[in-house]
Amino acid sequence: MSTYGTLFRVTTYGESHCASVGAIIDGCPPGLELSAQDVQVQLSRRRPGQSNLTTPRDEKDLVHIQSGIEHGVTLGTPIGLLVKNEDQRPKDYSETDLYPRPSHADYTYLEKYGVKASSGGGRSSARETIGRVAAGAIAERYLKLAYGIEIVAFVSSVGKIHLPSTVPTPANEDDDTAQDALTPEFRALLGSITRAEVDAQPTRCPHAETAERMTQRIIRAKDAMDSIGGTVTCVIRNVPSGLGEPVFDKFEAKLGHAMLSIPATKAFEIGSGFRGTEVPGSQHNDAFVLKANGKLGTTTNWSGGVQGGITNGEDIYFRVGFKSPATISQSQATAQYDGTPGALAARGRHDPCVVPRAVPIVEAMAAIVVLDELLIQNARRTAAGLLPPITTLPPTMVMPK
Amino acid sequence: MSTYGTLFRVTTYGESHCASVGAIIDGCPPGLELSAQDVQVQLSRRRPGQSNLTTPRDEKDLVHIQSGIEHGVTLGTPIGLLVKNEDQRPKDYSETDLYPRPSHADYTYLEKYGVKASSGGGRSSARETIGRVAAGAIAERYLKLAYGIEIVAFVSSVGKIHLPSTVPTPANEDDDTAQDALTPEFRALLGSITRAEVDAQPTRCPHAETAERMTQRIIRAKDAMDSIGGTVTCVIRNVPSGLGEPVFDKFEAKLGHAMLSIPATKAFEIGSGFRGTEVPGSQHNDAFVLKANGKLGTTTNWSGGVQGGITNGEDIYFRVGFKSPATISQSQATAQYDGTPGALAARGRHDPCVVPRAVPIVEAMAAIVVLDELLIQNARRTAAGLLPPITTLPPTMVMPK
Amino acid sequence: MSTYGTLFRVTTYGESHCASVGAIIDGCPPGLELSAQDVQVQLSRRRPGQSNLTTPRDEKDLVHIQSGIEHGVTLGTPIGLLVKNEDQRPKDYSETDLYPRPSHADYTYLEKYGVKASSGGGRSSARETIGRVAAGAIAERYLKLAYGIEIVAFVSSVGKIHLPSTVPTPANEDDDTAQDALTPEFRALLGSITRAEVDAQPTRCPHAETAERMTQRIIRAKDAMDSIGGTVTCVIRNVPSGLGEPVFDKFEAKLGHAMLSIPATKAFEIGSGFRGTEVPGSQHNDAFVLKANGKLGTTTNWSGGVQGGITNGEDIYFRVGFKSPATISQSQATAQYDGTPGALAARGRHDPCVVPRAVPIVEAMAAIVVLDELLIQNARRTAAGLLPPITTLPPTMVMPK
Amino acid sequence: MSTYGTLFRVTTYGESHCASVGAIIDGCPPGLELSAQDVQVQLSRRRPGQSNLTTPRDEKDLVHIQSGIEHGVTLGTPIGLLVKNEDQRPKDYSETDLYPRPSHADYTYLEKYGVKASSGGGRSSARETIGRVAAGAIAERYLKLAYGIEIVAFVSSVGKIHLPSTVPTPANEDDDTAQDALTPEFRALLGSITRAEVDAQPTRCPHAETAERMTQRIIRAKDAMDSIGGTVTCVIRNVPSGLGEPVFDKFEAKLGHAMLSIPATKAFEIGSGFRGTEVPGSQHNDAFVLKANGKLGTTTNWSGGVQGGITNGEDIYFRVGFKSPATISQSQATAQYDGTPGALAARGRHDPCVVPRAVPIVEAMAAIVVLDELLIQNARRTAAGLLPPITTLPPTMVMPK
Repeated sequence: MSTYGTLFRVTTYGESHCASVGAIIDGCPPGLELSAQDVQVQLSRRRPGQSNLTTPRDEKDLVHIQSGIEHGVTLGTPIGLLVKNEDQRPKDYSETDLYPRPSHADYTYLEKYGVKASSGGGRSSARETIGRVAAGAIAERYLKLAYGIEIVAFVSSVGKIHLPSTVPTPANEDDDTAQDALTPEFRALLGSITRAEVDAQPTRCPHAETAERMTQRIIRAKDAMDSIGGTVTCVIRNVPSGLGEPVFDKFEAKLGHAMLSIPATKAFEIGSGFRGTEVPGSQHNDAFVLKANGKLGTTTNWSGGVQGGITNGEDIYFRVGFKSPATISQSQATAQYDGTPGALAARGRHDPCVVPRAVPIVEAMAAIVVLDELLIQNARRTAAGLLPPITTLPPTMVMPK
Repeated sequence: MSTYGTLFRVTTYGESHCASVGAIIDGCPPGLELSAQDVQVQLSRRRPGQSNLTTPRDEKDLVHIQSGIEHGVTLGTPIGLLVKNEDQRPKDYSETDLYPRPSHADYTYLEKYGVKASSGGGRSSARETIGRVAAGAIAERYLKLAYGIEIVAFVSSVGKIHLPSTVPTPANEDDDTAQDALTPEFRALLGSITRAEVDAQPTRCPHAETAERMTQRIIRAKDAMDSIGGTVTCVIRNVPSGLGEPVFDKFEAKLGHAMLSIPATKAFEIGSGFRGTEVPGSQHNDAFVLKANGKLGTTTNWSGGVQGGITNGEDIYFRVGFKSPATISQSQATAQYDGTPGALAARGRHDPCVVPRAVPIVEAMAAIVVLDELLIQNARRTAAGLLPPITTLPPTMVMPK
Repeated sequence: MSTYGTLFRVTTYGESHCASVGAIIDGCPPGLELSAQDVQVQLSRRRPGQSNLTTPRDEKDLVHIQSGIEHGVTLGTPIGLLVKNEDQRPKDYSETDLYPRPSHADYTYLEKYGVKASSGGGRSSARETIGRVAAGAIAERYLKLAYGIEIVAFVSSVGKIHLPSTVPTPANEDDDTAQDALTPEFRALLGSITRAEVDAQPTRCPHAETAERMTQRIIRAKDAMDSIGGTVTCVIRNVPSGLGEPVFDKFEAKLGHAMLSIPATKAFEIGSGFRGTEVPGSQHNDAFVLKANGKLGTTTNWSGGVQGGITNGEDIYFRVGFKSPATISQSQATAQYDGTPGALAARGRHDPCVVPRAVPIVEAMAAIVVLDELLIQNARRTAAGLLPPITTLPPTMVMPK
Repeated sequence: MSTYGTLFRVTTYGESHCASVGAIIDGCPPGLELSAQDVQVQLSRRRPGQSNLTTPRDEKDLVHIQSGIEHGVTLGTPIGLLVKNEDQRPKDYSETDLYPRPSHADYTYLEKYGVKASSGGGRSSARETIGRVAAGAIAERYLKLAYGIEIVAFVSSVGKIHLPSTVPTPANEDDDTAQDALTPEFRALLGSITRAEVDAQPTRCPHAETAERMTQRIIRAKDAMDSIGGTVTCVIRNVPSGLGEPVFDKFEAKLGHAMLSIPATKAFEIGSGFRGTEVPGSQHNDAFVLKANGKLGTTTNWSGGVQGGITNGEDIYFRVGFKSPATISQSQATAQYDGTPGALAARGRHDPCVVPRAVPIVEAMAAIVVLDELLIQNARRTAAGLLPPITTLPPTMVMPK
């Protein structure tokens, strides 16, 4: 449904063409200094009309916070917020009264609900993600202040143009193979990449030459009244060990759930992902080593920061696949709702490629998951810490306090 | 935590070396004819010791049903069941008192809980999946009887050996590229594959020649005291349209959550998945066409049966990546819990490759998700069906009853 | 937290003095004809300033629906709505900067969150109930149209003035004893009472003479700058049998949870309640009898329509106790936040008695619970109905279809 | 359904006559020293056959712990446990094949599920509570060790025999009026009562003379082949302030939900309850005062330890009403399932009064609620404590750290 999370919880509402879209963010830790501007920054990174690569729907997406904050400090009570739908042009979609758009949600929403919104796909709209981004901005502000946690996502492929796994070494960049999580260069990138570096490119791919090729690929799709997909890679740094709940709520299961709930996603992998299934255990295992802070770390990080469903303190990284947008302007042979064959050419304004705008959405969902899991684990850790010392266990079974 | 589902709900308990593992399955529709044998069949497909490809832990895994069934019929009340842990040999793991196994859950469980089970990774054990498989067997029996739904999973890769996308055409089988969801041959395979065909091969890859190469690959890993990963592909046929709850509980999000909660999984993709992100929308969109049953279908199925997070009535198929098992017998350079460098050679009995035994687990989680979503959607559909006809809506916004 | 419900779900936000209060109502059946006016009617019954018995805060409480409805029909997607806080006078509460109001939430909110809203008790405000009432108005519209379900609450006591159990027989009305659920007169009242009859009295007690005495009691409290409590009784008619989920989510447990979440409530009883604990089983048991519609009914209804946690088709009735409002204008000896003894005289505008305005809130929460349980049970019933006939059970164990 | 709780979660299974009843307790803090005996103590207080006041079903109710504990210490993983149904005599109930027992769950279970257990009311059986009591015993052991929390319930009425509110002053004991929460004597009783004192009487009423009258009342019911109801009062001492989640999950709402999920309950009140609705606010408000520990306390405790849905650190006390058991041996005029009028005399073994055995069940549900709420609040408190100091708030809005 429209609610996500256990202790940090976001509930959203809103279709493409209604009065507003909004969210209620419940469970935000009290005492957090937070301004509307903290939220606005990420909303503005998500909004359409940022460059010639995105839809010309130019909406300012100004957030209006309704509750939960006084004098710039969170009260611990639900934060209600909304963004008005300024640019409503429902007439653009009139032909979709007859045709369900292929691979869009028009048909399935009608099958599910028996009625449909004038926009067709109901909540299956990019505007639905505004509430997520707002909630994520709040979550990540907490995570940054309390834990120094950093979340940075970037575009790792557009169509067949992939960020080389050996960035920043430029020699291999013609090798458009799937990205390899394992090179020292890639691990270094994950360890240092910043949002500023990501935003330096309109495509949000942090490697300038690859980014330029991606730009050309997107423009080619746009000119052809077509669309193209891509992938977003995200890293979360400084997450404490111990997050994630066995067995059904493993950290990667919650993360995968969150990512696959973003519109247009079809794939998710953490750490070495599908590629790692081809590597023998003897190479794939991440050996332990003592770190400077006195805790164990791993020499490699094929696990992507999660082992047995629980974070191990290493960088968490994952990749999300976004399909090519279903709504395209070129004519498509398809059938009407009543089965009559015909051809649909969707008017309206559409993104030829969603991944640049998907970057803050992926970051937002990551922040929501991390904060929720952090609160749950803190509940357990605090509870265990209040018990008297264990006297009956063999020493190897107990972690020194 | 250890509970999954909203209306059909499974809760499990049990580590590797405790008295028993078990589950409580709540929300099973009443009036379902069900015997212990219906559950046992899938448990036996999951159990170790089935062939020389799996761990020699030979446990019969006999299920004992405690409640919820009388005279062979479900009462609608919770079904309690358990499987005793017959073969407990905790001493095998004694060296892991000192070493956390690399890429296993030993370290993270200790970080999370501050204490650890003698087996190390606590619930991060293959035996934990017994409760899932039992619950799934019950769910799929309902789905089969009430809807004719069929769920079949199979091994689609072991290491770099991939089931060719052009099966049953044998010419391309030397092409070990990632499987392509798009060939007519592959779509035909999805439409017809049966469990009998899958079980005809010890690897559970339904293509004999590929299966033989997979067998050799697994034996090679076993002989090298190493391990190897792989992927499982699963198809769900005859699922009604309309399942899946926007926005956070999209069908693929729930499915991905369920699959990524299975031990050793690192990746999930539905339909065209990552491969599909490289295909332009004009080719990737699934055009609609009138089917013989009077409903709309699609000419292709890159969507994998889900659009906008809601099922569209086409075959649902997805692929799950399992990493190479972390527990291997060869010596690994790593550190002890206290940071002392050393080398660990795990004794005990381990699967060199988990994907053959993962097949019934993937089927089980799929069945659980489908039944839960089906119950939820039936609640909505039944509710909407009781309302008086809508008088104020334009006809194009209403589905004819 | 701020979300209630499983399949029909309401999430609310808003304190007393923020920009607005609002709610997201998720899971409303699609295809329901619904206007803002349907919601407004109940909001207006809840709002302050309706008579000289309530707080002079005169807020129009106009609802603004944001999403989920087009052309006057629900889409099945979340209904976002809000009511602006027109009359914000935070200065009225300035003395509470020093003093936590006795028996109010000022102290506990500060203990819980470490910060507090300027209004003191944060969400512990009557305005928080606006979202509930709006959600309830939507739920009850569905229930009325689809099932003919009627929900009517009324004031059954103010202080020691109780609605006589023998209404409409006027002779006993001087007997201010606790109401007796068992007289034929009271059962007849439950079976026929309407909102119009309830609203005919400013106190919302449907018995004119008792109502007049209640009015005098409230005015006496008001004149004394004091407050007084009371009880609200509610009946739900035409609820199908079979609602309620054993074992932790029995119908009365869900109903009790919902009612005890309303501000100022301290007590809940269903059917014969506390009084019934004094009656022997031989008298208290509700004998079965065949009803005109061919189903079993009961000759008495001490059970209040629920047996074993499941509805039996009879009228559901329950009683909710509301304490005397904590905020009073007369001076109270108490301590400041820092422990300094002193005296607090709260300024501001307060209800001397909340029960007349609580009536639509009780109705709203009842409607939310019934719809949620109805959706859940319909999921089960529909699922069971799709199974083949049971062949192995003794006939006495199966309900004829 | 059969699962209760958010972070501390219990799931149960089992009918009256199946192989076993059991529970999975998930979320128990790790590192808790816990033996089977800790659980057995409360199970033995709950079991039948303890005295001539209870059913002669003499079941030992030995608990078998399956998982989650090693070397007498909890691992943090789910604790599976079960109790075998030793004494199954389904034939006793054969007449209920024709007759639904009046006010029992036979009819409603059949209406809900369409099939019924041979025992009639399915899970609506006293044996269902075994899982609750086991979970509660674990919860309260944690609460005692980590917080010194004490939970003591006792019988406060049987039929019209009420524990005098002025205990231990014996003069008023002939006054069988409803108990008054407000006398100093009663408050002193709540502050000191122990389980040993409670168990000193077979009726579990801690006042010997009243207890003796209760015993006579129960024996009278038993001799008449009838039954009688009663109330249980429970106090929870040493609960920290700040527990309970606004708005729908107020502490008393969770507590009420938990209590009203116990079989045969019809009523719940916290603090002054229904009686308090009759007292003006000026008398009912609990004035604050500085306590010896430097925190605020209240001079009276009409609130029952909860204000605004959040605990305030004072003793929490509440009362639960249990109806007279529905199963009685004397003949009752009623109808068969098919509507045929007749008379039913239930054979079998039944409790003439459930309240003595209900005492440990009430304690168990109280412990489960408190631990769950404590874990949730600790998550929040820990999270807030990690934030930098608030700089922008007026000092009156912040609690000194």
